[in-house]
Amino acid sequence: MTLDLNSDLGEGFGAWTMGDDAAMLDIVTSANIACGFHAGDPSIMRRTCALAVEKGVRIGAHVGYRDLAGFGRRAIAMEPAQLRDEVLYQLGGLDAFARAAGDRVRYVKPHGALYHSAAAERKLADAVLAATVEFDPELTLLGPAGTHLERAAVDAGIRFVGEGFADRAYTPTGALAARGVSGAVLQPNEAVAQAVSIAMSGTVRTVDRSRQVPVSASSICVHGDSPAAVEMAGRIRAALDDVGVPVGPFC
Amino acid sequence: MTLDLNSDLGEGFGAWTMGDDAAMLDIVTSANIACGFHAGDPSIMRRTCALAVEKGVRIGAHVGYRDLAGFGRRAIAMEPAQLRDEVLYQLGGLDAFARAAGDRVRYVKPHGALYHSAAAERKLADAVLAATVEFDPELTLLGPAGTHLERAAVDAGIRFVGEGFADRAYTPTGALAARGVSGAVLQPNEAVAQAVSIAMSGTVRTVDRSRQVPVSASSICVHGDSPAAVEMAGRIRAALDDVGVPVGPFC
Amino acid sequence: MTLDLNSDLGEGFGAWTMGDDAAMLDIVTSANIACGFHAGDPSIMRRTCALAVEKGVRIGAHVGYRDLAGFGRRAIAMEPAQLRDEVLYQLGGLDAFARAAGDRVRYVKPHGALYHSAAAERKLADAVLAATVEFDPELTLLGPAGTHLERAAVDAGIRFVGEGFADRAYTPTGALAARGVSGAVLQPNEAVAQAVSIAMSGTVRTVDRSRQVPVSASSICVHGDSPAAVEMAGRIRAALDDVGVPVGPFC
Amino acid sequence: MTLDLNSDLGEGFGAWTMGDDAAMLDIVTSANIACGFHAGDPSIMRRTCALAVEKGVRIGAHVGYRDLAGFGRRAIAMEPAQLRDEVLYQLGGLDAFARAAGDRVRYVKPHGALYHSAAAERKLADAVLAATVEFDPELTLLGPAGTHLERAAVDAGIRFVGEGFADRAYTPTGALAARGVSGAVLQPNEAVAQAVSIAMSGTVRTVDRSRQVPVSASSICVHGDSPAAVEMAGRIRAALDDVGVPVGPFC
Repeated sequence: MTLDLNSDLGEGFGAWTMGDDAAMLDIVTSANIACGFHAGDPSIMRRTCALAVEKGVRIGAHVGYRDLAGFGRRAIAMEPAQLRDEVLYQLGGLDAFARAAGDRVRYVKPHGALYHSAAAERKLADAVLAATVEFDPELTLLGPAGTHLERAAVDAGIRFVGEGFADRAYTPTGALAARGVSGAVLQPNEAVAQAVSIAMSGTVRTVDRSRQVPVSASSICVHGDSPAAVEMAGRIRAALDDVGVPVGPFC
Repeated sequence: MTLDLNSDLGEGFGAWTMGDDAAMLDIVTSANIACGFHAGDPSIMRRTCALAVEKGVRIGAHVGYRDLAGFGRRAIAMEPAQLRDEVLYQLGGLDAFARAAGDRVRYVKPHGALYHSAAAERKLADAVLAATVEFDPELTLLGPAGTHLERAAVDAGIRFVGEGFADRAYTPTGALAARGVSGAVLQPNEAVAQAVSIAMSGTVRTVDRSRQVPVSASSICVHGDSPAAVEMAGRIRAALDDVGVPVGPFC
Repeated sequence: MTLDLNSDLGEGFGAWTMGDDAAMLDIVTSANIACGFHAGDPSIMRRTCALAVEKGVRIGAHVGYRDLAGFGRRAIAMEPAQLRDEVLYQLGGLDAFARAAGDRVRYVKPHGALYHSAAAERKLADAVLAATVEFDPELTLLGPAGTHLERAAVDAGIRFVGEGFADRAYTPTGALAARGVSGAVLQPNEAVAQAVSIAMSGTVRTVDRSRQVPVSASSICVHGDSPAAVEMAGRIRAALDDVGVPVGPFC
Repeated sequence: MTLDLNSDLGEGFGAWTMGDDAAMLDIVTSANIACGFHAGDPSIMRRTCALAVEKGVRIGAHVGYRDLAGFGRRAIAMEPAQLRDEVLYQLGGLDAFARAAGDRVRYVKPHGALYHSAAAERKLADAVLAATVEFDPELTLLGPAGTHLERAAVDAGIRFVGEGFADRAYTPTGALAARGVSGAVLQPNEAVAQAVSIAMSGTVRTVDRSRQVPVSASSICVHGDSPAAVEMAGRIRAALDDVGVPVGPFC
């Protein structure tokens, strides 16, 4: 089975940059591109979409809260109807650049605080999915399996793809261990091994290292916000190639 | 020949309102809907698009400078390439709501300072048209005839529709008289008469009242930002009906 | 004892207006002036401060979440340290205009979602108070009595003034009845009576009309966001004058 | 005579960073700190002010156009009265953090497009100076000598300090050569030599290398937006020390 690698890209804004998008687009197969609400501006969207298409990487809409000052990492208590509208606007905006580059938005992934709040609250998940269906029922939703996002996608008739994290430890229930917990963030060697484990056996070792638990992931999220992160992403891609796991987009 | 009436709508933002959109949508045939850069937010776009479709009014993208604080009325010295990107983003964002309402964006009209700067500078006009063609070559451009906007539209293969103003006086060369000039803003009775004159003879009287000059306008822009403005718009529509001018959308 | 009337003012932004500030400044004795984060821009701050000083009304900083799109009515999950910084910036910005008008910021009142979240969470209340003390320990905090805001003010050595609402019903514990509850929003006649009751006896009738409960309020908040609201504010002021309650600022 | 070194600092926003402020604060004697309009947020202002005070560096308000998307590098056509208000707000906001750090804003320097437009248009220069006088007549204005900014400062009774650029070539009239001109941007060795020349003889060599022209600069602006820029700034400081030029703040 093919495994996808996805990464958050196009996260600069105006004169500010974030990460090395060109390097990451040589590694990943799916690009979660910021849509201007938590990061990204129209010119960055154009460049990132064009580069993704040039490198054969799928374009996903990385939709977030309207919060440049907080980079979309702070939950904003808003009505689901308003959230739906804000997601739809972002889909339309990014898709214009995806089409200008010769492709189209293929999937949706909520960003930052919205990723977590929509996973935890059904009505927020439904709002994200309502906008997704409204924009294009052929879209896929990329997110954490076993959460309200997966259930809302299923109920909305939207294909769902679960993602795993190479560099984060999991709890015995298959959830991500909180960053504050000892051992929650894996070292590079461990992260590479965990990516291979997700690909080969569909399991991860729990944060207390006591046992393996299943994780439902057809895509692995890798980061590119520092030179060290880009290097780790490259090592994960190389390790998957070494063990013969075919890496390719999920849509 | 059919005459169109257009108006700037959807110009609120969050808790702030601007004008009486519902009343205006009973009068006009084309709605220039703000796309979130100078005014408008996603929820307002949804409501305005839905109401326009419900009333059979055409949806146009009222694209502007990214300047909520200045309502798009202040020129921002930006590169044409950046302007093109910002226009494309706005087209994509609004179109998502037009389609959710069952229609699509039919035309583009630059707003405020962009209306004037793109009319005056060919490279800015070209940037607006480049985004328009890129998004949908079937779109129409609505703007001031005889300017760089018209020439850029023609060269880009985009249909151009010129608009006139009922309540503004013109110079002998067919340009709008500057607001500061005595007599530049017409009284309600004069505005109604000027609308009829544009419709019947394609001419307007010059600001110095010395003579009639031709104005190329298949659409008349009416305002709705005050109760008095809405009333004047209604009187113009009624006067056109009285003299037997068919009023309808240009696209 | 003197009773203060306060109102939220300067809540326009750019081309958008909100309420009739000039009319309200003839009625109230304290002006909660928006500082640019949830509403208000520098030119509005200048005009509102100048008008307040001209009419002898005290200037208070109506500090809010950085959220123009939500008018500060949506809680943003932020670190207390960041909230403290954002409050301090708003105090500095508004005070520049208060001083340009010949006075200075005299008090602080949190706005909208911040009013509620800081009342409910001690660490947020402490953040607001930390910025207040840092800016000027002579400031007063205006807010809901019996909440974390009052306790944080006391602990910070900042004078606290409780405020009551004329047009909102209270629960038996002295808290505001939620807007959704039947009878939670009072009719104009009832609101005028409640204002007099707060002034004369320091009590309000509970939402179920079963009994009177004490409310600690040296200031009554009146609204001016509609012509009807301005009229009600004027009637409250007149009723207080009629019963001989001296109306004046608390600082 | 003492020579000042100034640099633009605190230019991050939210999750985005710009330059190495800590390294630059070991080199320069005056910090032009962004005030939130073109860059900078309240938490960055607090950190940068605190670090500046800790290292004995003077705090200046780097006021700019309200344009995060354009980093203040795009002129916005605004009324002088509005510009004055926007500058005053920024002064108040930053000063709150300067005072929290134990100092105060000592000087004002316009940023980016405002630097150029206020130098070129007297009414914009007057607007900047009107806000400066209003906020604190003891402030100094730092900017390009021989321009409307200097004249407006003199007429407003504000002390003016001219600045020079180590890494930019000058025209025979003492103006900066446009970036597009061949030789307009100096190589590191040349920049160090030009800084010494400004300090020792008050002259710079013209862009065509034909002759020396006087430049009125009591402060040299050095950049820190890249590791190479920081290194060059350090070399300039060391070269000034080597030739015995005392380096220190101008206020």
